[in-house]
Amino acid sequence: MNRALCRKCFIDNILERVESEIKKYNLIKPNECVLLAISGGKDSFTLLDVMAKIHNPNKLIALTLIEGIEGYNRADVLEFMKSKTRELGIDHIVLTLKEAVGATVDEFVKNMMLRNIRIPPCTYCGIARRRAINKVAREQNADKVATAHVLDDEAQTYVMNILRGDITRLVQVHPRGPWLSKLFVRKVKPLRKIYERETALYAYFHGYKFQERECPYIIHIPTLRARIRDYLYRLELEKPGSLLNLVESLDEALNEYVKKYYELPELPRCKICGEPTSYNREICKFCELLMSVGLIK
Amino acid sequence: MNRALCRKCFIDNILERVESEIKKYNLIKPNECVLLAISGGKDSFTLLDVMAKIHNPNKLIALTLIEGIEGYNRADVLEFMKSKTRELGIDHIVLTLKEAVGATVDEFVKNMMLRNIRIPPCTYCGIARRRAINKVAREQNADKVATAHVLDDEAQTYVMNILRGDITRLVQVHPRGPWLSKLFVRKVKPLRKIYERETALYAYFHGYKFQERECPYIIHIPTLRARIRDYLYRLELEKPGSLLNLVESLDEALNEYVKKYYELPELPRCKICGEPTSYNREICKFCELLMSVGLIK
Repeated sequence: MNRALCRKCFIDNILERVESEIKKYNLIKPNECVLLAISGGKDSFTLLDVMAKIHNPNKLIALTLIEGIEGYNRADVLEFMKSKTRELGIDHIVLTLKEAVGATVDEFVKNMMLRNIRIPPCTYCGIARRRAINKVAREQNADKVATAHVLDDEAQTYVMNILRGDITRLVQVHPRGPWLSKLFVRKVKPLRKIYERETALYAYFHGYKFQERECPYIIHIPTLRARIRDYLYRLELEKPGSLLNLVESLDEALNEYVKKYYELPELPRCKICGEPTSYNREICKFCELLMSVGLIK
Repeated sequence: MNRALCRKCFIDNILERVESEIKKYNLIKPNECVLLAISGGKDSFTLLDVMAKIHNPNKLIALTLIEGIEGYNRADVLEFMKSKTRELGIDHIVLTLKEAVGATVDEFVKNMMLRNIRIPPCTYCGIARRRAINKVAREQNADKVATAHVLDDEAQTYVMNILRGDITRLVQVHPRGPWLSKLFVRKVKPLRKIYERETALYAYFHGYKFQERECPYIIHIPTLRARIRDYLYRLELEKPGSLLNLVESLDEALNEYVKKYYELPELPRCKICGEPTSYNREICKFCELLMSVGLIK
């Protein structure tokens, strides 16, 4: 950080830091099969390229989910990602949310409108994607799911859970955090020590030229995460390295504490779909959402 | 929290919660002599009254420091606090910063102005007060120094140190945090689980009628702490109990981790005054400040 590096040294530095994070917390073992969840943004492009360089490509599977949102299909990005996975020799699964879990985001929104209820489409999109990723990971017998969360995301999530006093979620941010169900394929975040500005540069250096496009459903209200994000960006600007400091400090402070949560019981199962759900629930959030808009009875 | 209590139950509830916090972390043992650092604000009034009710008053000594700032002498508050300590049968030491450590805040500022340098007066005031409190505590053979920091302060300090990634300071917020020098009398914060709004009500119920007055040296710039304070107030407003949650979560998460810091070596001594100073210093911040304005050579 805060050093001027030439292109080659910059790239080597990113690869080294990802490898060192994987090793430090034993995120992925050399022979494990990893499902890479790649949306097509610069973070996920970086995840794909980095993982292909530090892990056996035959043990990698890429997954892209298509939300099914009119006016937001990003076909050019998808073609680019497909040519990239071909070039890297990595199997690439492309599925719509309808194929994966039964309903696109647009279908969800349409049904919601008909019933005159209001649920943020992001709620469905997030939950449906998580469900779909886990389903595909199980079908493919993947040992791990790798997501493209970067340092900025990690810092935000840590601070958010601290401010909420949500300690069960706080410990789950930690790379040694508890894993609450055998039915969930364990998720890892190889880029968690890499800044977003670094993935942007890394992706650019590797021919990624797309601008971030905004989902038409995006709601510009200052959520807790948005406010924390703004705050953390200012802090990083004033004192570069602050976010890395923050994440590393909390990683260290929680390193032993997380083990206390290993004793948590297996999550209960949803009475409708049989998938794991939260401790206080009988029906999972996904089925609840589908029921509320009449997509399941 | 969030319950409507009658006056008596409200007061009993505060006393119980302070006692339970003291017991939980063994902050003060029954036979220990405690120096109460009381500025005269509602928080310190509450500290004084609560401690007199739950600890042997013969084992309590009150200390009020007078900053020596023209137009900010608060003689009425001081008289009120003196009558209160008399009523409670508690010895009350009143000292100016000049008597305690050699220079008032005004003297410091005057000398600074003459040399045309700029140091926030709060920097001197804070460091001089800390020095003075510790000096008096040692002279009085106090076992502990109790300060009137409340839950709001604790939450801010926790978040501030996390955002700074300052883990050595983070662990020192914890009631089981490391203590870095035998020359420092251990500080405890009996009100650390009590909200500021509760001390205001507690003080009011006990005849405290003063408004907070603003120090003429106060600088209204958005410091990190001020921004965190604003943010946390909003959060508490949206979801009452958030600050308590935050402090309790971090207390729990750090409870074992803090012990790692017990192995830190004794702090080095200042080459001028012989008092403890930070690991990376030869001359303590207090002597450095006095030297920089020519108050010591």
